Amino acid sequence: MAENRLQKQIQFIIEIDKLKKITRQTPLTDQSRKETDAEHSWHIAVMAILLSEYAKEDQIDVFRVLQMLLVHDLVEIDAGDTFCYDEAGNAKKLAKEIKAADRIFNLLPADQAHYFRELWNEFETRKSPEARFGAALDRLQPLLHNSRTQGGTWREHHISRRQVIQRNNPINDSAPTLWEYAAKLIDEAFEKGFLGD
Amino acid sequence: MAENRLQKQIQFIIEIDKLKKITRQTPLTDQSRKETDAEHSWHIAVMAILLSEYAKEDQIDVFRVLQMLLVHDLVEIDAGDTFCYDEAGNAKKLAKEIKAADRIFNLLPADQAHYFRELWNEFETRKSPEARFGAALDRLQPLLHNSRTQGGTWREHHISRRQVIQRNNPINDSAPTLWEYAAKLIDEAFEKGFLGD
Repeated sequence: MAENRLQKQIQFIIEIDKLKKITRQTPLTDQSRKETDAEHSWHIAVMAILLSEYAKEDQIDVFRVLQMLLVHDLVEIDAGDTFCYDEAGNAKKLAKEIKAADRIFNLLPADQAHYFRELWNEFETRKSPEARFGAALDRLQPLLHNSRTQGGTWREHHISRRQVIQRNNPINDSAPTLWEYAAKLIDEAFEKGFLGD
Repeated sequence: MAENRLQKQIQFIIEIDKLKKITRQTPLTDQSRKETDAEHSWHIAVMAILLSEYAKEDQIDVFRVLQMLLVHDLVEIDAGDTFCYDEAGNAKKLAKEIKAADRIFNLLPADQAHYFRELWNEFETRKSPEARFGAALDRLQPLLHNSRTQGGTWREHHISRRQVIQRNNPINDSAPTLWEYAAKLIDEAFEKGFLGD
Protein backbone atom coordinates (compact mmCIF):
# COMPACT_ATOMS: atom_id res chain seq x y z
CA MET A 1 0.00 0.00 0.00
CA ALA A 2 2.77 2.38 1.00
CA GLU A 3 4.71 1.35 -2.11
CA ASN A 4 1.69 2.08 -4.26
CA ARG A 5 1.54 5.56 -2.74
CA LEU A 6 5.15 6.30 -3.67
CA GLN A 7 4.61 4.91 -7.17
CA LYS A 8 1.74 7.32 -7.71
CA GLN A 9 3.87 10.22 -6.50
CA ILE A 10 6.73 9.24 -8.81
CA GLN A 11 4.34 8.84 -11.74
CA PHE A 12 3.11 12.39 -11.11
CA ILE A 13 6.69 13.68 -10.86
CA ILE A 14 7.48 12.13 -14.24
CA GLU A 15 4.23 13.46 -15.74
CA ILE A 16 4.90 17.06 -14.76
CA ASP A 17 8.24 16.96 -16.58
CA LYS A 18 6.01 17.90 -19.53
CA LEU A 19 5.68 21.43 -18.14
CA LYS A 20 9.18 21.97 -19.56
CA LYS A 21 7.67 21.45 -23.03
CA ILE A 22 5.00 24.14 -22.70
CA THR A 23 6.30 27.31 -24.29
CA ARG A 24 4.95 30.68 -23.18
CA GLN A 25 4.70 33.91 -25.14
CA THR A 26 7.26 35.64 -22.89
CA PRO A 27 10.78 35.97 -24.36
CA LEU A 28 13.91 35.47 -22.26
CA THR A 29 15.45 38.86 -21.55
CA ASP A 30 18.27 38.09 -24.03
CA GLN A 31 15.56 37.38 -26.64
CA SER A 32 17.20 34.09 -27.66
CA ARG A 33 13.94 32.14 -27.26
CA LYS A 34 10.65 32.07 -25.34
CA GLU A 35 10.59 30.69 -21.82
CA THR A 36 8.89 27.48 -20.71
CA ASP A 37 6.15 27.19 -18.12
CA ALA A 38 8.54 25.41 -15.74
CA GLU A 39 11.07 28.24 -16.02
CA HIS A 40 8.38 30.86 -15.49
CA SER A 41 7.06 29.03 -12.41
CA TRP A 42 10.56 28.93 -10.93
CA HIS A 43 11.16 32.62 -11.67
CA ILE A 44 8.01 33.91 -10.00
CA ALA A 45 8.61 31.64 -6.99
CA VAL A 46 11.98 33.33 -6.41
CA MET A 47 10.24 36.69 -6.88
CA ALA A 48 7.77 35.75 -4.13
CA ILE A 49 10.62 35.23 -1.67
CA LEU A 50 12.17 38.57 -2.60
CA LEU A 51 9.14 40.80 -2.95
CA SER A 52 6.77 39.66 -0.20
CA GLU A 53 7.54 42.85 1.73
CA TYR A 54 5.42 44.72 -0.84
CA ALA A 55 2.27 42.67 -0.23
CA LYS A 56 -0.43 45.08 0.88
CA GLU A 57 -2.05 42.62 3.23
CA ASP A 58 0.01 41.95 6.33
CA GLN A 59 1.36 38.61 7.44
CA ILE A 60 1.13 36.98 4.08
CA ASP A 61 2.06 33.26 4.19
CA VAL A 62 4.94 33.13 1.68
CA PHE A 63 5.12 29.33 1.93
CA ARG A 64 1.55 29.12 0.63
CA VAL A 65 2.35 31.63 -2.14
CA LEU A 66 5.31 29.48 -3.22
CA GLN A 67 3.26 26.31 -3.32
CA MET A 68 0.54 27.96 -5.41
CA LEU A 69 3.03 29.45 -7.86
CA LEU A 70 4.88 26.15 -8.26
CA VAL A 71 1.70 24.28 -9.25
CA HIS A 72 -0.46 26.99 -10.85
CA ASP A 73 0.52 26.21 -14.45
CA LEU A 74 0.45 22.39 -14.28
CA VAL A 75 -2.97 22.32 -15.99
CA GLU A 76 -1.26 23.77 -19.09
CA ILE A 77 0.33 20.34 -19.68
CA ASP A 78 -3.03 19.43 -21.22
CA ALA A 79 -4.64 22.82 -21.83
CA GLY A 80 -1.60 24.59 -23.29
CA ASP A 81 -0.57 28.19 -22.68
CA THR A 82 -3.19 30.77 -23.64
CA PHE A 83 -1.83 34.23 -24.49
CA CYS A 84 -3.36 36.59 -21.95
CA TYR A 85 -4.55 39.02 -24.66
CA ASP A 86 -6.23 36.27 -26.72
CA GLU A 87 -9.90 36.91 -25.84
CA ALA A 88 -11.33 33.99 -27.81
CA GLY A 89 -8.74 31.63 -26.31
CA ASN A 90 -9.42 32.83 -22.80
CA ALA A 91 -13.16 32.23 -23.14
CA LYS A 92 -12.50 28.51 -23.67
CA LYS A 93 -9.59 28.31 -21.25
CA LEU A 94 -11.36 27.54 -17.97
CA ALA A 95 -13.22 24.45 -19.21
CA LYS A 96 -10.00 23.02 -20.68
CA GLU A 97 -8.08 23.72 -17.50
CA ILE A 98 -10.68 22.11 -15.24
CA LYS A 99 -10.54 18.96 -17.35
CA ALA A 100 -6.74 19.05 -17.12
CA ALA A 101 -6.84 19.50 -13.35
CA ASP A 102 -9.16 16.49 -13.08
CA ARG A 103 -6.71 14.30 -14.93
CA ILE A 104 -3.33 15.56 -13.70
CA PHE A 105 -3.92 16.05 -9.97
CA ASN A 106 -5.73 12.70 -9.76
CA LEU A 107 -2.52 10.90 -10.65
CA LEU A 108 -1.57 11.60 -7.02
CA PRO A 109 -2.72 9.74 -3.91
CA ALA A 110 -6.17 11.10 -2.95
CA ASP A 111 -5.00 13.34 -0.08
CA GLN A 112 -2.33 15.01 -2.21
CA ALA A 113 -4.64 15.23 -5.25
CA HIS A 114 -7.05 17.16 -3.03
CA TYR A 115 -4.28 19.35 -1.60
CA PHE A 116 -2.91 20.33 -5.03
CA ARG A 117 -6.39 20.87 -6.43
CA GLU A 118 -7.17 23.20 -3.54
CA LEU A 119 -3.94 25.15 -4.15
CA TRP A 120 -4.90 25.53 -7.80
CA ASN A 121 -8.49 26.53 -6.98
CA GLU A 122 -7.32 29.06 -4.42
CA PHE A 123 -4.98 30.64 -6.98
CA GLU A 124 -7.51 30.65 -9.82
CA THR A 125 -10.30 32.19 -7.75
CA ARG A 126 -7.95 34.70 -6.05
CA LYS A 127 -9.71 33.94 -2.85
CA SER A 128 -6.85 34.64 -0.40
CA PRO A 129 -4.27 37.43 0.03
CA GLU A 130 -1.66 34.81 -0.90
CA ALA A 131 -3.44 33.98 -4.18
CA ARG A 132 -3.81 37.66 -5.05
CA PHE A 133 -0.15 38.40 -4.33
CA GLY A 134 0.94 35.34 -6.33
CA ALA A 135 -1.25 36.45 -9.23
CA ALA A 136 0.36 39.91 -9.11
CA LEU A 137 3.80 38.33 -9.55
CA ASP A 138 2.47 36.13 -12.36
CA ARG A 139 1.61 39.39 -14.17
CA LEU A 140 4.65 41.42 -13.15
CA GLN A 141 7.23 38.93 -14.47
CA PRO A 142 6.18 38.99 -18.17
CA LEU A 143 5.79 42.77 -17.87
CA LEU A 144 9.43 43.02 -16.74
CA HIS A 145 10.51 40.82 -19.65
CA ASN A 146 8.51 42.76 -22.25
CA SER A 147 9.83 46.01 -20.88
CA ARG A 148 13.43 44.75 -21.23
CA THR A 149 12.99 43.40 -24.77
CA GLN A 150 11.81 46.46 -26.69
CA GLY A 151 8.21 45.57 -26.07
CA GLY A 152 8.59 41.80 -26.52
CA THR A 153 5.21 40.15 -27.03
CA TRP A 154 3.39 43.47 -26.72
CA ARG A 155 5.02 44.65 -29.92
CA GLU A 156 4.82 41.23 -31.58
CA HIS A 157 1.03 41.14 -31.10
CA HIS A 158 0.33 44.89 -31.44
CA ILE A 159 -0.95 45.25 -27.89
CA SER A 160 -2.03 48.71 -26.73
CA ARG A 161 -1.10 50.57 -23.55
CA ARG A 162 -4.74 50.41 -22.54
CA GLN A 163 -4.75 46.60 -22.80
CA VAL A 164 -1.55 46.30 -20.77
CA ILE A 165 -2.90 48.58 -18.04
CA GLN A 166 -6.18 46.69 -17.92
CA ARG A 167 -4.37 43.35 -17.68
CA ASN A 168 -1.87 44.43 -15.04
CA ASN A 169 -3.84 46.90 -12.96
CA PRO A 170 -4.87 44.16 -10.47
CA ILE A 171 -1.24 44.25 -9.25
CA ASN A 172 -2.33 47.45 -7.52
CA ASP A 173 -4.84 45.61 -5.32
CA SER A 174 -2.25 43.42 -3.65
CA ALA A 175 1.04 45.30 -4.10
CA PRO A 176 0.65 49.05 -4.78
CA THR A 177 4.42 49.72 -4.76
CA LEU A 178 4.97 47.08 -7.43
CA TRP A 179 2.11 48.51 -9.51
CA GLU A 180 3.61 52.01 -9.24
CA TYR A 181 6.88 50.58 -10.59
CA ALA A 182 5.08 48.60 -13.32
CA ALA A 183 3.04 51.63 -14.39
CA LYS A 184 6.27 53.57 -14.97
CA LEU A 185 7.61 50.76 -17.16
CA ILE A 186 4.38 50.79 -19.18
CA ASP A 187 4.66 54.57 -19.67
CA GLU A 188 8.28 54.24 -20.76
CA ALA A 189 7.39 51.49 -23.23
CA PHE A 190 4.64 53.68 -24.67
CA GLU A 191 6.95 56.67 -24.97
CA LYS A 192 9.52 54.55 -26.82
CA GLY A 193 6.84 53.32 -29.23
CA PHE A 194 6.88 49.71 -28.01
CA LEU A 195 3.19 49.92 -27.14
CA GLY A 196 0.28 51.29 -29.18
CA ASP A 197 -2.29 53.67 -27.72
CA MET B 1 16.06 54.97 -0.67
CA ALA B 2 13.05 52.62 -0.85
CA GLU B 3 13.05 53.03 -4.62
CA ASN B 4 16.71 52.09 -4.74
CA ARG B 5 15.88 48.92 -2.79
CA LEU B 6 13.23 47.87 -5.29
CA GLN B 7 15.56 48.67 -8.19
CA LYS B 8 18.18 46.33 -6.76
CA GLN B 9 15.60 43.59 -6.34
CA ILE B 10 14.38 44.01 -9.92
CA GLN B 11 17.96 44.03 -11.22
CA PHE B 12 18.51 40.70 -9.46
CA ILE B 13 15.25 39.28 -10.86
CA ILE B 14 16.39 40.20 -14.38
CA GLU B 15 19.89 38.80 -13.75
CA ILE B 16 18.62 35.39 -12.64
CA ASP B 17 16.70 35.02 -15.90
CA LYS B 18 20.09 33.69 -17.08
CA LEU B 19 19.49 30.46 -15.13
CA LYS B 20 17.18 29.53 -18.03
CA LYS B 21 20.28 29.50 -20.27
CA ILE B 22 22.29 27.05 -18.17
CA THR B 23 21.82 23.58 -19.61
CA ARG B 24 22.26 20.54 -17.40
CA GLN B 25 23.33 17.03 -18.38
CA THR B 26 19.89 15.59 -17.50
CA PRO B 27 17.62 14.87 -20.48
CA LEU B 28 13.88 15.56 -20.41
CA THR B 29 12.03 12.27 -20.02
CA ASP B 30 10.94 12.46 -23.70
CA GLN B 31 14.64 12.85 -24.62
CA SER B 32 13.90 15.83 -26.88
CA ARG B 33 16.59 17.97 -25.22
CA LYS B 34 18.41 18.52 -21.92
CA GLU B 35 16.73 20.48 -19.16
CA THR B 36 17.76 23.92 -17.91
CA ASP B 37 18.79 24.77 -14.37
CA ALA B 38 15.61 26.83 -13.90
CA GLU B 39 13.44 23.87 -14.95
CA HIS B 40 15.36 21.51 -12.67
CA SER B 41 15.00 23.91 -9.72
CA TRP B 42 11.25 24.08 -10.29
CA HIS B 43 10.93 20.31 -10.59
CA ILE B 44 12.72 19.48 -7.34
CA ALA B 45 10.76 22.19 -5.52
CA VAL B 46 7.49 20.47 -6.45
CA MET B 47 9.07 17.16 -5.38
CA ALA B 48 9.83 18.68 -1.98
CA ILE B 49 6.14 19.49 -1.45
CA LEU B 50 5.12 15.96 -2.46
CA LEU B 51 7.80 13.86 -0.82
CA SER B 52 8.48 15.55 2.51
CA GLU B 53 6.66 12.72 4.29
CA TYR B 54 9.72 10.53 3.55
CA ALA B 55 12.21 12.81 5.31
CA LYS B 56 13.83 10.76 8.06
CA GLU B 57 14.12 13.66 10.44
CA ASP B 58 10.80 14.75 11.87
CA GLN B 59 9.24 18.17 11.54
CA ILE B 60 11.24 19.20 8.55
CA ASP B 61 10.56 22.82 7.52
CA VAL B 62 9.39 22.40 3.91
CA PHE B 63 9.27 26.17 3.38
CA ARG B 64 13.01 26.33 4.10
CA VAL B 65 13.64 23.34 1.78
CA LEU B 66 11.76 25.13 -1.02
CA GLN B 67 13.72 28.32 -0.59
CA MET B 68 17.05 26.47 -0.67
CA LEU B 69 16.09 24.48 -3.75
CA LEU B 70 14.87 27.56 -5.60
CA VAL B 71 18.19 29.39 -5.12
CA HIS B 72 20.73 26.54 -4.90
CA ASP B 73 21.78 26.65 -8.56
CA LEU B 74 21.95 30.44 -9.03
CA VAL B 75 25.74 30.38 -8.73
CA GLU B 76 25.81 28.35 -11.96
CA ILE B 77 24.91 31.53 -13.86
CA ASP B 78 28.63 32.33 -13.57
CA ALA B 79 30.16 28.97 -12.69
CA GLY B 80 28.21 26.82 -15.17
CA ASP B 81 26.86 23.34 -14.57
CA THR B 82 29.48 20.76 -13.60
CA PHE B 83 28.58 17.15 -14.42
CA CYS B 84 28.47 15.32 -11.09
CA TYR B 85 30.75 12.53 -12.35
CA ASP B 86 33.40 14.96 -13.69
CA GLU B 87 36.06 14.66 -10.96
CA ALA B 88 38.44 17.26 -12.37
CA GLY B 89 35.57 19.73 -12.85
CA ASN B 90 34.28 19.17 -9.34
CA ALA B 91 37.69 19.88 -7.80
CA LYS B 92 37.57 23.42 -9.22
CA LYS B 93 33.85 23.90 -8.72
CA LEU B 94 33.70 25.31 -5.19
CA ALA B 95 36.08 28.22 -5.80
CA LYS B 96 34.16 29.22 -8.93
CA GLU B 97 30.84 28.98 -7.13
CA ILE B 98 31.98 31.08 -4.17
CA LYS B 99 33.09 33.81 -6.56
CA ALA B 100 29.72 33.58 -8.31
CA ALA B 101 27.84 33.79 -5.00
CA ASP B 102 29.85 36.92 -4.10
CA ARG B 103 28.78 38.62 -7.30
CA ILE B 104 25.21 37.44 -7.78
CA PHE B 105 23.78 37.63 -4.26
CA ASN B 106 25.38 41.03 -3.73
CA LEU B 107 23.18 42.50 -6.43
CA LEU B 108 20.46 42.40 -3.75
CA PRO B 109 19.94 44.82 -0.86
CA ALA B 110 22.33 43.81 1.96
CA ASP B 111 19.76 42.03 4.14
CA GLN B 112 18.49 39.89 1.27
CA ALA B 113 22.01 39.27 -0.06
CA HIS B 114 22.84 37.87 3.37
CA TYR B 115 19.63 35.83 3.52
CA PHE B 116 20.17 34.21 0.11
CA ARG B 117 23.86 33.59 0.81
CA GLU B 118 22.93 31.83 4.05
CA LEU B 119 20.38 29.67 2.21
CA TRP B 120 23.05 28.72 -0.31
CA ASN B 121 25.67 28.03 2.41
CA GLU B 122 23.22 25.93 4.38
CA PHE B 123 22.46 23.83 1.31
CA GLU B 124 26.08 23.45 0.22
CA THR B 125 27.33 22.43 3.66
CA ARG B 126 24.32 20.12 4.31
CA LYS B 127 24.21 21.52 7.78
CA SER B 128 20.49 21.11 8.48
CA PRO B 129 17.92 18.33 8.00
CA GLU B 130 16.28 20.61 5.42
CA ALA B 131 19.53 20.95 3.44
CA ARG B 132 20.11 17.19 3.53
CA PHE B 133 16.59 16.42 2.38
CA GLY B 134 16.82 19.03 -0.38
CA ALA B 135 20.13 17.54 -1.52
CA ALA B 136 18.52 14.08 -1.64
CA LEU B 137 15.88 15.40 -4.06
CA ASP B 138 18.57 17.15 -6.10
CA ARG B 139 20.07 13.66 -6.64
CA LEU B 140 16.85 11.70 -6.99
CA GLN B 141 15.44 13.80 -9.85
CA PRO B 142 18.23 13.15 -12.41
CA LEU B 143 18.23 9.50 -11.31
CA LEU B 144 14.51 9.28 -12.19
CA HIS B 145 15.20 10.90 -15.57
CA ASN B 146 18.15 8.64 -16.39
CA SER B 147 16.16 5.61 -15.36
CA ARG B 148 13.32 6.64 -17.72
CA THR B 149 15.58 7.37 -20.70
CA GLN B 150 17.43 4.08 -21.19
CA GLY B 151 20.25 5.24 -18.95
CA GLY B 152 20.32 8.86 -20.18
CA THR B 153 23.57 10.54 -19.16
CA TRP B 154 24.80 7.40 -17.38
CA ARG B 155 25.00 5.63 -20.72
CA GLU B 156 26.17 8.71 -22.59
CA HIS B 157 29.17 9.08 -20.27
CA HIS B 158 29.80 5.36 -19.55
CA ILE B 159 29.05 5.67 -15.84
CA SER B 160 29.18 2.53 -13.72
CA ARG B 161 26.68 1.19 -11.21
CA ARG B 162 29.29 1.68 -8.52
CA GLN B 163 29.61 5.40 -9.38
CA VAL B 164 25.84 5.89 -9.37
CA ILE B 165 25.49 4.16 -6.00
CA GLN B 166 28.33 6.22 -4.52
CA ARG B 167 26.82 9.43 -5.83
CA ASN B 168 23.27 8.73 -4.71
CA ASN B 169 23.77 6.75 -1.52
CA PRO B 170 23.50 9.93 0.63
CA ILE B 171 19.77 9.88 -0.19
CA ASN B 172 19.65 7.06 2.37
CA ASP B 173 20.76 9.37 5.19
CA SER B 174 17.80 11.70 4.88
CA ALA B 175 15.12 9.61 3.14
CA PRO B 176 15.61 5.82 3.42
CA THR B 177 12.36 4.99 1.60
CA LEU B 178 13.37 7.10 -1.37
CA TRP B 179 16.80 5.48 -1.41
CA GLU B 180 15.24 2.02 -1.36
CA TYR B 181 13.20 3.03 -4.42
CA ALA B 182 16.23 4.59 -6.12
CA ALA B 183 18.38 1.52 -5.46
CA LYS B 184 15.82 -0.64 -7.27
CA LEU B 185 15.92 1.67 -10.29
CA ILE B 186 19.73 1.45 -10.31
CA ASP B 187 19.56 -2.35 -10.22
CA GLU B 188 17.03 -2.40 -13.06
CA ALA B 189 19.19 -0.05 -15.16
CA PHE B 190 22.18 -2.32 -14.60
CA GLU B 191 20.22 -5.45 -15.52
CA LYS B 192 19.06 -3.80 -18.73
CA GLY B 193 22.64 -2.87 -19.61
CA PHE B 194 22.17 0.90 -19.21
CA LEU B 195 24.87 1.01 -16.54
CA GLY B 196 28.33 -0.57 -16.53
CA ASP B 197 29.69 -2.52 -13.58
